[in-house]
Amino acid sequence: MKKILVTVPCDEEYRQSLRESAPDYEFEFSDRATATAEQISSACIILGNVPASRISCSPELRWLQLSSSGADAYVKEGILSPDTILTSSTGAYGKAVAEHLFAVTLSLMKKLHLYRDKQHEHCWADMGYVSSLADATVLVVGTGDIGLAYAKLCKLMGARVIGVRRRPGGLPEYMDEIHLASELDGLLPEADIVASFLPGSRETNGLFSIDRLMKMKPGAFFVNGGRGNVVSPNDLLLALHEGIIAGAGVDVFETEPLPAGHPLWDEPRLIVTPHVAGDDHLEETFDNVRRIILENLRAYLNGGELKSVVDRSSGYCV
Amino acid sequence: MKKILVTVPCDEEYRQSLRESAPDYEFEFSDRATATAEQISSACIILGNVPASRISCSPELRWLQLSSSGADAYVKEGILSPDTILTSSTGAYGKAVAEHLFAVTLSLMKKLHLYRDKQHEHCWADMGYVSSLADATVLVVGTGDIGLAYAKLCKLMGARVIGVRRRPGGLPEYMDEIHLASELDGLLPEADIVASFLPGSRETNGLFSIDRLMKMKPGAFFVNGGRGNVVSPNDLLLALHEGIIAGAGVDVFETEPLPAGHPLWDEPRLIVTPHVAGDDHLEETFDNVRRIILENLRAYLNGGELKSVVDRSSGYCV
Repeated sequence: MKKILVTVPCDEEYRQSLRESAPDYEFEFSDRATATAEQISSACIILGNVPASRISCSPELRWLQLSSSGADAYVKEGILSPDTILTSSTGAYGKAVAEHLFAVTLSLMKKLHLYRDKQHEHCWADMGYVSSLADATVLVVGTGDIGLAYAKLCKLMGARVIGVRRRPGGLPEYMDEIHLASELDGLLPEADIVASFLPGSRETNGLFSIDRLMKMKPGAFFVNGGRGNVVSPNDLLLALHEGIIAGAGVDVFETEPLPAGHPLWDEPRLIVTPHVAGDDHLEETFDNVRRIILENLRAYLNGGELKSVVDRSSGYCV
Repeated sequence: MKKILVTVPCDEEYRQSLRESAPDYEFEFSDRATATAEQISSACIILGNVPASRISCSPELRWLQLSSSGADAYVKEGILSPDTILTSSTGAYGKAVAEHLFAVTLSLMKKLHLYRDKQHEHCWADMGYVSSLADATVLVVGTGDIGLAYAKLCKLMGARVIGVRRRPGGLPEYMDEIHLASELDGLLPEADIVASFLPGSRETNGLFSIDRLMKMKPGAFFVNGGRGNVVSPNDLLLALHEGIIAGAGVDVFETEPLPAGHPLWDEPRLIVTPHVAGDDHLEETFDNVRRIILENLRAYLNGGELKSVVDRSSGYCV
């Protein structure tokens, strides 16, 4: 009997829904950290993330449905067989990640991170001028589900919002302008906030190099809620240290966890959060994930169209 | 010649506008911290704040136009002669203060203050569940200019917003419900966020007592962008320490500056900012203040109606 390995957290009701959707399959339930190489190699479908290194191009695996939005760990060479279909749970995380980065953006603008530092010192100190998102231009790089949700929050608060995306298309709601990635360099000097929601891939690697960060407006902020590969820790550190940018807020890093000895921890103008914007920190996120997975399972078994198929060369959804 | 003392910061152009509006008056320019008792006692009009203790019920003073929104320091006994008209610059601070408290609210909900503490420890630690303003009920206590601006930001982000005010009236825009202050106790258990924008006065003194804070929903947050007298430091500390509320963010305190040895500084679930939400931290705020002052000066001299006259018994604008 063909086997489905499930690592997305589920209650009995959800297990029952899965079983009813795939009566011809045997189910095995594990979790994303502890799923073994043996469990993985015997599955023809996996629903949920598993440690990428344990997949070893399993020839049995027809389809891997991730519970994450990012698929970067799985598009690398030597992880999945070329025949394995890869789908993500993009769409589940928009609200959670966008809200987190929106809060980080406002913290930077209102200097709340600096006031927190002063609080530790018991110091009643005025940190001077702040700025308003209502008067700001926000450049949203990456206009998937999360980028669009972030753009909406900024727009509602009064910002001018400019989107940057790979492929031509109409103007998304809650954006004032939309441009192609090729125009990025010309747009950087206009923005008070540059927000990246790009996936991890060869294409996006080191996109925010020190040369690009230097094109940003003096006093501007950089935030990253996509993947950490878009900016090297050294470039980010240099940009902050030299005052090339006024501050940054990042939830994602090239290497995670950020090593305890890394100098980025001590950069006062950087807000570090430990890749917690998404995950299941907002309770409804995993309801979204489970819904997406169930819908995709039904589509897969009934010959329907799978949603959020990942293009392995670009790391983006097709 | 009758004298006008000006302590609001002004450039030559603004001085000229003032002089043209009041050609029969002599002007003296000082600033709010250094204005002397002598300068104050010889003025019949003061435009801008001065140290309250130096006014000593000056019989010369016909009108004091504050540059602040709060008037609490000036409504106390022994400061102003009963005949002195007191006006504030309410209306100038809505955007700045509301945005600051909105950023503080989001920080609390996304645990950014706790992640900042972890950053200091170089600790990549997941702090667990967060909540969303889009799913929250926000109780806005005090529906002046600042409270309304805060309500709008919360409403745009998707919150259910309930307003509380002293006097009956129609439903303000960006609110779902409006109630009278007498209904406060019954509303507290409904709110995920209780936000105070009340002025300092005898009426509001200690309004958020420990008994009231205990009526709040477990896991709810308290934020204060009005005046610090509404909650005693001991009650706030107890509520935080005992987990009666999940956290708080306050920009105002009963005693300011908050003494360096005060235990509130060390309360991790409290975000302390040193009365900086308003002031002139957002550059446009003082443009607003100067505009309000000039309009009121012209109204005063031409027998028009003064805006934002403070009712000395309640501390509110009439």
